[in-house]
Amino acid sequence: KEILSVKPKSNNILKYSERAALCSNGLSRRLFTIMEQKKTNLVLSADVTSSKELLQLVDKTGPHVCMVKTHVDILEDFNQDVVDSLTKLAAKHDFLIFEDRKFADIGNTVVHQYSGGLYRISEWADVVNAHAIPGPGVVQGLKKVGAPKGRACLLIAEMSSSGNLATGSYTQDTVKMAEENKDFVIGFICVSKISSNPSFLHMTPGVQLEAGQDSLGQQYLTPSEVIGKRGSDLIIVGRGIYQAQDPANAAKQFQIAGYDAYVTRMAEAMIL
Amino acid sequence: KEILSVKPKSNNILKYSERAALCSNGLSRRLFTIMEQKKTNLVLSADVTSSKELLQLVDKTGPHVCMVKTHVDILEDFNQDVVDSLTKLAAKHDFLIFEDRKFADIGNTVVHQYSGGLYRISEWADVVNAHAIPGPGVVQGLKKVGAPKGRACLLIAEMSSSGNLATGSYTQDTVKMAEENKDFVIGFICVSKISSNPSFLHMTPGVQLEAGQDSLGQQYLTPSEVIGKRGSDLIIVGRGIYQAQDPANAAKQFQIAGYDAYVTRMAEAMIL
Repeated sequence: KEILSVKPKSNNILKYSERAALCSNGLSRRLFTIMEQKKTNLVLSADVTSSKELLQLVDKTGPHVCMVKTHVDILEDFNQDVVDSLTKLAAKHDFLIFEDRKFADIGNTVVHQYSGGLYRISEWADVVNAHAIPGPGVVQGLKKVGAPKGRACLLIAEMSSSGNLATGSYTQDTVKMAEENKDFVIGFICVSKISSNPSFLHMTPGVQLEAGQDSLGQQYLTPSEVIGKRGSDLIIVGRGIYQAQDPANAAKQFQIAGYDAYVTRMAEAMIL
Repeated sequence: KEILSVKPKSNNILKYSERAALCSNGLSRRLFTIMEQKKTNLVLSADVTSSKELLQLVDKTGPHVCMVKTHVDILEDFNQDVVDSLTKLAAKHDFLIFEDRKFADIGNTVVHQYSGGLYRISEWADVVNAHAIPGPGVVQGLKKVGAPKGRACLLIAEMSSSGNLATGSYTQDTVKMAEENKDFVIGFICVSKISSNPSFLHMTPGVQLEAGQDSLGQQYLTPSEVIGKRGSDLIIVGRGIYQAQDPANAAKQFQIAGYDAYVTRMAEAMIL
């Protein structure tokens, strides 16, 4: 079992609201503002396969999250109503919608995948993500579609799965690609802080209250490890919430654990 | 403008039928057999956005191809009938169906993306592909769904787009991941021969009759360059066929160019 490498502790002592003021993209400004107002750095990974279940889960956990991450392509019964209802819930509970599509094709193809097909992702997802592997064309293609609509993109710079190849120079090249597209790329999927630019969001998947691993290579870290030690900004939690007996209460526990870790990190940074 | 690196000329003198006999996966055996019988190493990349257009294109070009590559998630009007019609055309013209999904998530997620959602890809696609970036879990997840159905997977070891990160040790790690899953992974998306194992298929996208580049970073190579100099096995052609005035004739030209390059390579290898 491998150990994900630990990066040095963040020396960033800016509050969310102070970082919001540094962002050039409207959606990252809005996200930092929501995080401070709702006191949460929790992203719900809503990996359920029925729309009814998705909407119930999101409505229950909405008060505790700043963002809901979807995989609409695993829903058995996706239709336009689902998107409309999700958008209403986002307004009701004040969170952003992030479709975890992991775009990973050449520019010309992602243009169609993002705007077209049955899912028309660009019509409703505030934020999408992409792998950097196809080179800058993937960001250019997504930006062509998303920028005029005020959307934003995260680049996957590191992964939480065992034996993944998003390490070393791959991660560095991804950061560079983000820096060259700061108006549209607002941050990273990563397992620790990888950029000192305070306008970039660092979002970490594979978070549980106990560390561990699943049977298909996913590795889990705790909120205090992710936010406190690794200097990430947001925790992405899936099975720890939607498989819980009481998802709303589980979300609340993650909200508290994640926000406490942020407050503690800030306090420690100020003392040191 | 960067130049894609040229690998040494292939010394492989095995015919398609001889390589078919070395495959452990039934689908790669079948593909090599189709290639020899139909005298084609051409894969049509059917990147159109209407189902009617897709089916017409595939019916016209079917006699010239051994495989049709789809992006069902860019079709405006996907439904079960499209898949049924495509499957009938595959039987009529004897080709395999390859959904270019580029799976790139952790094992637990790709299980759902491959088997579920509106597209139910595992129900109709003979072959899918995946990026190696998430680590072995992505192959394990896909295999769990696809192997019992007799499906197969290609790993994306190299890309044709400018500035892509699938190079060097990334490519080598991908080859290793394929070798460890030879029963399910039948080859690579790549820009040149990267494995000396004759059972692996090498498939190269970004092929046109003239070399060049599009406005979003795609770089084009010719059939003789891809098959002759770089030692790949199959050419993947999209815009060169579906944007042609006469797609059937364009497909025929690529079929001839690709197969001639294979015959010439074999002849040269036997002489040298």
